[in-house]
Amino acid sequence: MRAAVFNGPGEIDIEERPKPEIEGPDHAIVRVTHTAVCGSDLWFYRGESDREAGSRVGHEPMGVVEAVGEDVVSVEPGDRVFAPFLQSCGRCEFCRRGLHTSCVDVGSWNGDDGGAQGEYVRATHADGTLVRVPDRYADDEGVLRSILPLTDVMGTGHHAVRSAGVEAGDSCVVVGDGAVGLCAVAAARRLGAERIVAMGHHEDRLDLARAFGATDTVAARGEAAVERAHDLTHGGAAHVVEAVGAASAMETAVEVCRPGGTVGYVGVPHGMDGLDLYPLFGDNITLRGGVAPVRAYADDLLADVLQGTLDPAPVFTETVSLGDVPEGYRLMDQREAVKVLVEVDA
Amino acid sequence: MRAAVFNGPGEIDIEERPKPEIEGPDHAIVRVTHTAVCGSDLWFYRGESDREAGSRVGHEPMGVVEAVGEDVVSVEPGDRVFAPFLQSCGRCEFCRRGLHTSCVDVGSWNGDDGGAQGEYVRATHADGTLVRVPDRYADDEGVLRSILPLTDVMGTGHHAVRSAGVEAGDSCVVVGDGAVGLCAVAAARRLGAERIVAMGHHEDRLDLARAFGATDTVAARGEAAVERAHDLTHGGAAHVVEAVGAASAMETAVEVCRPGGTVGYVGVPHGMDGLDLYPLFGDNITLRGGVAPVRAYADDLLADVLQGTLDPAPVFTETVSLGDVPEGYRLMDQREAVKVLVEVDA
Repeated sequence: MRAAVFNGPGEIDIEERPKPEIEGPDHAIVRVTHTAVCGSDLWFYRGESDREAGSRVGHEPMGVVEAVGEDVVSVEPGDRVFAPFLQSCGRCEFCRRGLHTSCVDVGSWNGDDGGAQGEYVRATHADGTLVRVPDRYADDEGVLRSILPLTDVMGTGHHAVRSAGVEAGDSCVVVGDGAVGLCAVAAARRLGAERIVAMGHHEDRLDLARAFGATDTVAARGEAAVERAHDLTHGGAAHVVEAVGAASAMETAVEVCRPGGTVGYVGVPHGMDGLDLYPLFGDNITLRGGVAPVRAYADDLLADVLQGTLDPAPVFTETVSLGDVPEGYRLMDQREAVKVLVEVDA
Repeated sequence: MRAAVFNGPGEIDIEERPKPEIEGPDHAIVRVTHTAVCGSDLWFYRGESDREAGSRVGHEPMGVVEAVGEDVVSVEPGDRVFAPFLQSCGRCEFCRRGLHTSCVDVGSWNGDDGGAQGEYVRATHADGTLVRVPDRYADDEGVLRSILPLTDVMGTGHHAVRSAGVEAGDSCVVVGDGAVGLCAVAAARRLGAERIVAMGHHEDRLDLARAFGATDTVAARGEAAVERAHDLTHGGAAHVVEAVGAASAMETAVEVCRPGGTVGYVGVPHGMDGLDLYPLFGDNITLRGGVAPVRAYADDLLADVLQGTLDPAPVFTETVSLGDVPEGYRLMDQREAVKVLVEVDA
């Protein structure tokens, strides 16, 4: 089978790799039809985080079940499924509490199970991990494009907004105009936020933010951006989303947060020597969030996508084939794409 | 009037200073009868934080109102009062929401208003800041000793526990066996926590923690301490209090926190180059807290002290006169006292 492989910073190649097989009763083999390139993939692509050379990549699988182990009950061969960026058992304390990312047997899409940017992956906890797409939508390419972000960025944006404590009628600020920030805007609108201020550096992405529900956008940088956000929120928002994971974005998020407010953060902390707690301490700003348990949100978000009230598909501004995954990384790295969809079986 | 003054690291002196006077309609002059030395005073005492040489010190005033401005309605001359470590207006958005520390006109006990370790202080927002002790308790030295911690450490411990989300029946871990940690234990018991694990390095203070309501204590250090806390809480507590403000204590607090749990922190962040967010990120641990709005809690805590169900007085393990305030600092610095009470009019 063909799979995208990381061979060092800037080097993604398509190589032949062994196809994963059922090796346990909870396993399922999924023929990947759609996947994506993630902003978090850029950290190793740029050499800013470590990753083993030769490792398979991709963590946003959607496809068709090809085979299942004998204990699997929730899916069967032929089902269209998608899965979060982490595998989870679905049965432990943390999965039952909706914190699948802290599953006692949490697993990544990697190594022997295959990366999602490849022709096949193995779910080692198929019942706990895979989400079935109802048959009537299983081959609707338009719907599948809208569902695919639920593997990562849409669930992550939702987690950020939930972590920030956004409820109907609230005002919130979303720092970051990448795919997660845009999805956070959509999530905030979905939860009924009345004022949604999107902050970013790219006019075209802020246009998308407005399409997703932002009532205001701030394209300025530095102090001017913070001042503008303060003006728009009359002194800071009680709910702020940090959707980047960079030190500067976290700093901005804290600065635009109202005393006593909450910063919901979901960007993988990156390039931070450490967070200066003092600005949070002085104004009792809560920091809540972390790696998003998107499995916990998949069913609710899927229902909204299927009824047409939520559509994160516009985050995919470019589409490539599996063979062009290296080009997909380049497009993301150069910010020529917000997010790249990969049609694996194209 | 006599007042304690900071003249450089390790140098606290009693000097003559001008007595503050009423200069505005919201002012009150309080003749200080009792005050205390605070763990946070040690940062400048040890030269670990900056403070202007010659500045007055102390921020935990209790005393008798001597004079009030014409607009003051809540206290009158002769009233026994105490006050939080910060002054606040009581009328702005933040005061009304119980976040008096973010008052739009927040003020410290310092400069012209006088430090609390002196014979007089001026409250510039008397109605928003001073808390009146009912007349029947106004001269009961035993009760006054129990009330005095409400100026700072008891309200701070309570804020930590509230920030950590402790509710009746919960298990929690309190990291730190200083006065704030001990008060956090008392606060957790007051809120109905069923299991309270106190972690510290001093057996005598942990004995006090047990007297305050700790069901278990952990005196070990490093990995052994974390393992013991994990054993006691079956894998970490959902509610953890960080009551020190040092990097090592914050690290321990995060390590003993259960995935999805909350660390409530109230120690002034100190000696931290920056908090490594990654351990919080991976397990979705919330960080909530900050400088404690003790004015918000004063009335409720006072009611409990007066009815005898809360008594933080045992944190005062030494008592000195105003003239011996320098010795009080030494006792705190050398850890020969948990907290020092100052009888200013003795």
